[in-house]
Amino acid sequence: MAPPTFVRANVRAMSGHAPGEQPDGQRVIKLNTNENPYPPSPRVLEAIREIDAETLRKYPQPQADAFRASAAKLWNIKPEMILAGNGSEDIFTIATRCFVPPGGIIASPTPSYSLYPVLAQLADATHVGVAWKKNWQLPIDALTSSNAQAIYLCNPNTPSGTLVSSDDIESLLKETKSLVLVNEAYADFSGESVIELVEKFENLVVARSLSKGYSLAGLRFGYAVAQAQVIEQMMKVKDSYNCDAISIVAATAALEDQAHAQAGWKNVREERERVSSELRRFGFEVIPSRANFVLASVPGEDGKSFYSGLKQQGVLVRFFAQDGLEDKLRITIGTGQENDALLGAIKALMEKSKAA
Amino acid sequence: MAPPTFVRANVRAMSGHAPGEQPDGQRVIKLNTNENPYPPSPRVLEAIREIDAETLRKYPQPQADAFRASAAKLWNIKPEMILAGNGSEDIFTIATRCFVPPGGIIASPTPSYSLYPVLAQLADATHVGVAWKKNWQLPIDALTSSNAQAIYLCNPNTPSGTLVSSDDIESLLKETKSLVLVNEAYADFSGESVIELVEKFENLVVARSLSKGYSLAGLRFGYAVAQAQVIEQMMKVKDSYNCDAISIVAATAALEDQAHAQAGWKNVREERERVSSELRRFGFEVIPSRANFVLASVPGEDGKSFYSGLKQQGVLVRFFAQDGLEDKLRITIGTGQENDALLGAIKALMEKSKAA
Repeated sequence: MAPPTFVRANVRAMSGHAPGEQPDGQRVIKLNTNENPYPPSPRVLEAIREIDAETLRKYPQPQADAFRASAAKLWNIKPEMILAGNGSEDIFTIATRCFVPPGGIIASPTPSYSLYPVLAQLADATHVGVAWKKNWQLPIDALTSSNAQAIYLCNPNTPSGTLVSSDDIESLLKETKSLVLVNEAYADFSGESVIELVEKFENLVVARSLSKGYSLAGLRFGYAVAQAQVIEQMMKVKDSYNCDAISIVAATAALEDQAHAQAGWKNVREERERVSSELRRFGFEVIPSRANFVLASVPGEDGKSFYSGLKQQGVLVRFFAQDGLEDKLRITIGTGQENDALLGAIKALMEKSKAA
Repeated sequence: MAPPTFVRANVRAMSGHAPGEQPDGQRVIKLNTNENPYPPSPRVLEAIREIDAETLRKYPQPQADAFRASAAKLWNIKPEMILAGNGSEDIFTIATRCFVPPGGIIASPTPSYSLYPVLAQLADATHVGVAWKKNWQLPIDALTSSNAQAIYLCNPNTPSGTLVSSDDIESLLKETKSLVLVNEAYADFSGESVIELVEKFENLVVARSLSKGYSLAGLRFGYAVAQAQVIEQMMKVKDSYNCDAISIVAATAALEDQAHAQAGWKNVREERERVSSELRRFGFEVIPSRANFVLASVPGEDGKSFYSGLKQQGVLVRFFAQDGLEDKLRITIGTGQENDALLGAIKALMEKSKAA
């Protein structure tokens, strides 16, 4: 059926953002959407079990102040420099509402997170994808000369897993007057952050997520760090009660159990190096990753067939039907056991292909 | 400090939406933001206590299908006609993104929900407030001739508590080609809904909230009902995972305990009639309400002083510093005990004022 005419033309024309598959069953080895393979802190479940009827009945504290206090302590900054969101996607929506006018431009190095062009479309703006320089280096000059109101940078980047140095981001910030949003959804696995640059640059917003680093993708909680007068403007455009009362206490509990989270990050890093080595032994080209996933070119260069071959064996990874990515798979680092299952499935697939 | 220049001009100029006060302490009688005075269904707390680590670790089902199935059964419609949101405010944000272009118009009868002008500002659109006809009747002709892309109608209306009949809404739908969004956040207390008109009118979207009717303001859960091809377009512009995994199971549990919810609605209606009568005995003019609050003109016509006088006694109600509302207070219906405290505080205030 044709879309109704009262729907905006740009919405009718768009296909929308396609997040990775979320299969219902439990039997699949799910390495396609970069969830943390380890469970969240037990303190999170305790906090959730203590939720009472009164907390549900009343509106939540509108700025999630309990969480802001905790995050401020973690980063040694003022709570006024923090904005909590319903997942970091809410932070991107808020930033786009706040910084990108109709007819404006969002620039980002490409390939990167597939949501950025969608955010631009929704804002009646244009997305300008600027190709990464060789070896996934930041294209500072091209970004600066893009005339963008906002530059969105994923660091570590998806799907490559590569990290831009803080020095390069500082160089970009010195060159541009545009807003620079650094999406650090995967930064817990790299151990590096540009949050310390916020005090120095008014035009820097850092977005963080609890989905990956704190194993809370189901909770939807993220936050932004920026100078207080920038956060103040962003507050104006958020939904009035964007974070629910349960997620506020759960996210706070997660952040306060650093030992639990850090142990998981260490395991993920070790498994990432093991999986990368094993994949290379199978003939994959693996881009050195600082995230909780790897981007690897498959032997035979047909990423899609390889994706299907793994799916048939119950292992779900991510394939992007996109220029420059058609020979590649993005593989989330799972538990040791899940990674063994992945490597076993790859081995079986390669033996089958040799026999054919 | 001056707002940064990289913030959009329309955002710099706006003051943002001011939700009602959410005091931290427990000692206040809180009748200012229309929460349901009764606790949510015990099944909601049970569902929350059964949340496991795996549910938190993974992304939620992106369309909240479990909830859609349940809501579809309740209304005897197809699940494809339902869109779940992070509170009904998320539904309004989605609708505005979907239906209102930059430079467009949102029209609504006025006074009404103070969020509508803010939504228009954020979309670079204009809000046209059309005065209610006498006795809060729907200004059908003025709305139709407003050239709005979207007409937002709160029914029952806030702050008046008045209800527009389904017949009048049907007349509006027959007259206009604009999108008509009927916000039924308070409809559980009126017992009337226009959801049944959705099958007949493609340009009707009905928004529902679990905040009031199901005592879940802290959870942030709402939904939209519209024809499937309209929901399909709205899905494109929502955040990928707008509802978290906990809220999906909690909202589903709430909806499935109709007996619990309905008992609360009945109590609220009875208390509403009692409070209205008592206020009239004190000399208030009370607009007959179909919601869980009443709008009442205070004796002496100074709403603000009355608000302060009640606040000093620990009773929080809502005052709007707005033309036509300055002699009025919006008072949420509480439990019998809370309403007694309100009436006691009013009595004390009036005796004090007589003595002065």
